[in-house]
Amino acid sequence: MKLATMLTDFTDADGYPAVMKGVLLSIAPDVTIVDLSHTVAPQDVIQAALLLARCAPYFPAGTVHVCVVDPGVGTQRRGIIAQLGRQYFVGPDNGLMTLIYRKALTAKEPINVYSLENSTYRLDPVSRSFHGRDVFAPAAAHFLNGAPLVSFGAEVSDPVLLQLPEPGKTKFGWEGEIIHIDAFGNLATSIRAEYLARNAKIHIILAGQTISGLLNTFGEGRQGDLVAIIDSEGYLSVCVVDGNAKQILNAHVGDRVQVSFS
Amino acid sequence: MKLATMLTDFTDADGYPAVMKGVLLSIAPDVTIVDLSHTVAPQDVIQAALLLARCAPYFPAGTVHVCVVDPGVGTQRRGIIAQLGRQYFVGPDNGLMTLIYRKALTAKEPINVYSLENSTYRLDPVSRSFHGRDVFAPAAAHFLNGAPLVSFGAEVSDPVLLQLPEPGKTKFGWEGEIIHIDAFGNLATSIRAEYLARNAKIHIILAGQTISGLLNTFGEGRQGDLVAIIDSEGYLSVCVVDGNAKQILNAHVGDRVQVSFS
Amino acid sequence: MKLATMLTDFTDADGYPAVMKGVLLSIAPDVTIVDLSHTVAPQDVIQAALLLARCAPYFPAGTVHVCVVDPGVGTQRRGIIAQLGRQYFVGPDNGLMTLIYRKALTAKEPINVYSLENSTYRLDPVSRSFHGRDVFAPAAAHFLNGAPLVSFGAEVSDPVLLQLPEPGKTKFGWEGEIIHIDAFGNLATSIRAEYLARNAKIHIILAGQTISGLLNTFGEGRQGDLVAIIDSEGYLSVCVVDGNAKQILNAHVGDRVQVSFS
Repeated sequence: MKLATMLTDFTDADGYPAVMKGVLLSIAPDVTIVDLSHTVAPQDVIQAALLLARCAPYFPAGTVHVCVVDPGVGTQRRGIIAQLGRQYFVGPDNGLMTLIYRKALTAKEPINVYSLENSTYRLDPVSRSFHGRDVFAPAAAHFLNGAPLVSFGAEVSDPVLLQLPEPGKTKFGWEGEIIHIDAFGNLATSIRAEYLARNAKIHIILAGQTISGLLNTFGEGRQGDLVAIIDSEGYLSVCVVDGNAKQILNAHVGDRVQVSFS
Repeated sequence: MKLATMLTDFTDADGYPAVMKGVLLSIAPDVTIVDLSHTVAPQDVIQAALLLARCAPYFPAGTVHVCVVDPGVGTQRRGIIAQLGRQYFVGPDNGLMTLIYRKALTAKEPINVYSLENSTYRLDPVSRSFHGRDVFAPAAAHFLNGAPLVSFGAEVSDPVLLQLPEPGKTKFGWEGEIIHIDAFGNLATSIRAEYLARNAKIHIILAGQTISGLLNTFGEGRQGDLVAIIDSEGYLSVCVVDGNAKQILNAHVGDRVQVSFS
Repeated sequence: MKLATMLTDFTDADGYPAVMKGVLLSIAPDVTIVDLSHTVAPQDVIQAALLLARCAPYFPAGTVHVCVVDPGVGTQRRGIIAQLGRQYFVGPDNGLMTLIYRKALTAKEPINVYSLENSTYRLDPVSRSFHGRDVFAPAAAHFLNGAPLVSFGAEVSDPVLLQLPEPGKTKFGWEGEIIHIDAFGNLATSIRAEYLARNAKIHIILAGQTISGLLNTFGEGRQGDLVAIIDSEGYLSVCVVDGNAKQILNAHVGDRVQVSFS
């Protein structure tokens, strides 16, 4: 099976993801395409990078992820195709792949990044505002058809990497922030499970509220309780049992979170 | 063709359905996946059960439906895999499959339900909050790869069944309620076509409005008319021609509906 | 590869597109299905026609597009299957295919339109309100299985064609209107690139604002600038760099746009 995914901020409303699929299937008809998401907040590269890191590890080796959250379209920003570990990523060189890149680096897995320069792997002409259609979908399709990475362009040794929110050490524990709010209103923070002291009671301060203790699961709380858990990706998260913590706390991405231990 | 569907309340925004697809395709690469819906209202098991009953009958025999509207995730609620008639259903044992189960029972079709206990058909470790990824998608994939139902766990003789809204007989006809409002604002009631007296004129009272008579089709009304029809699933529905009955009547799921005949 | 697309105003919420896919795959199991969009504004045939014209040209020859934005469902309006150029289109005869039809006409490409009358290519019974399920998906599936066009019904020589907004010549240039607003808030007008005088400076008046000059790309402007560009489909468009022109100008489809040259 040849497998491609697509991640954009285009929404379903205008047909843009479909255009990319038409282009990809016109070049490489035997590819299976899976949508990661098309409703990333417009031009929010950080949220897209987090989403990509959430999804990609669960796909098979060899999957090609086409990622187009691209505020710099039409400028001189590069397009790239990257082998990061056992998968491949195509998109603008704007940091979308940062978390995947760092993970491959840490694990000493293969990292090979090339610039998308070869005009035989593009539509002609290339528009100034829709490189998902004209550059990235065709590149993915030609790669899935067997074009070698080196045939796309020059090797890139300095891909753009984002500064992603990292928690800081404090006198009593950690200070972090909300990095993602999902559709259920659960508040994922930048503080990962491995930062938390074992055998200590945790206290979380967020939006003027203090939450003491970690639940293993929502089922341990009562409906309406404000609780903290480790989410399915390993982040400390603040949630309301059977409710929406974002709405109840009026929380936003970037809000500060304090963690201490006793 | 091996075919799976997915029904969740995860939305497209966070990539969770994509994660489930990645897991499924990693285990069973040759499966075609169709989305039923990912925008069921959060944790609304009844709406999900209605949606599943609306869609499943139109899929081929052998289709595996992966259904994850799961307010009890992380508690002791069981996960199940069920043969109901000629199709298969995987998800939490919370009543999502109630309508399909009852239909199979009435039609004396095969019903075989097993508990998802076999850890070789799960990801390791299993998180406490994302069984769609860790339990249900892998179970569906292994089943589609040929694992027999009996290999998943103990047989379940008492799956959870929901109390779904049923209309009551009244002196003059029926009393029911709105059970579903679709994206066009059409109001489906719990009163089915087969309950309506033939050769009698029907009167429907809803939100202080009375509608007399049934149209065969929207085309028989004029723009803006408040009308009653039998919808494509056999339910008595209240609609506004070329308009949105939900908005105009300020109607909600659960609102009472009276039907009488003359 | 056999490829079908689907374009509806059904949204993802109620499972209606999934029902159509189940029907299609039950009849023609080996078809790949791609969603064009399911969030066209309810019953907005013009927006659907524009979306179809945006997407279809990027799909392979032989693709079958199933288009169901169908305010006339249940009336005497015809259903049709049409060869327009090298692709095929199935849906109500309400003008959805107007732009594709005119393009094929201009290019002297094949045009063959047939009425959907053959009851062996429908579900039985046919509901009055869901022809996507009962008529159009089955027709597409049987055609993809090899049923010849002529077997569907009588040839149609007068398919319904929409009057789409065309700009008018003025003393100083053109008067047009906003024909589409995408999810980024970019305002596409009815004025195409080929209407614009070369070597002349363009002035655009919209919502009381004047924009002078055309950018080649967003990257030439500064954040927040109100700018004009030629979009990826060749339409003159008004945009805000890294912003949402619809919100900032309170613009709507149908708003008038004046263009002059100096």
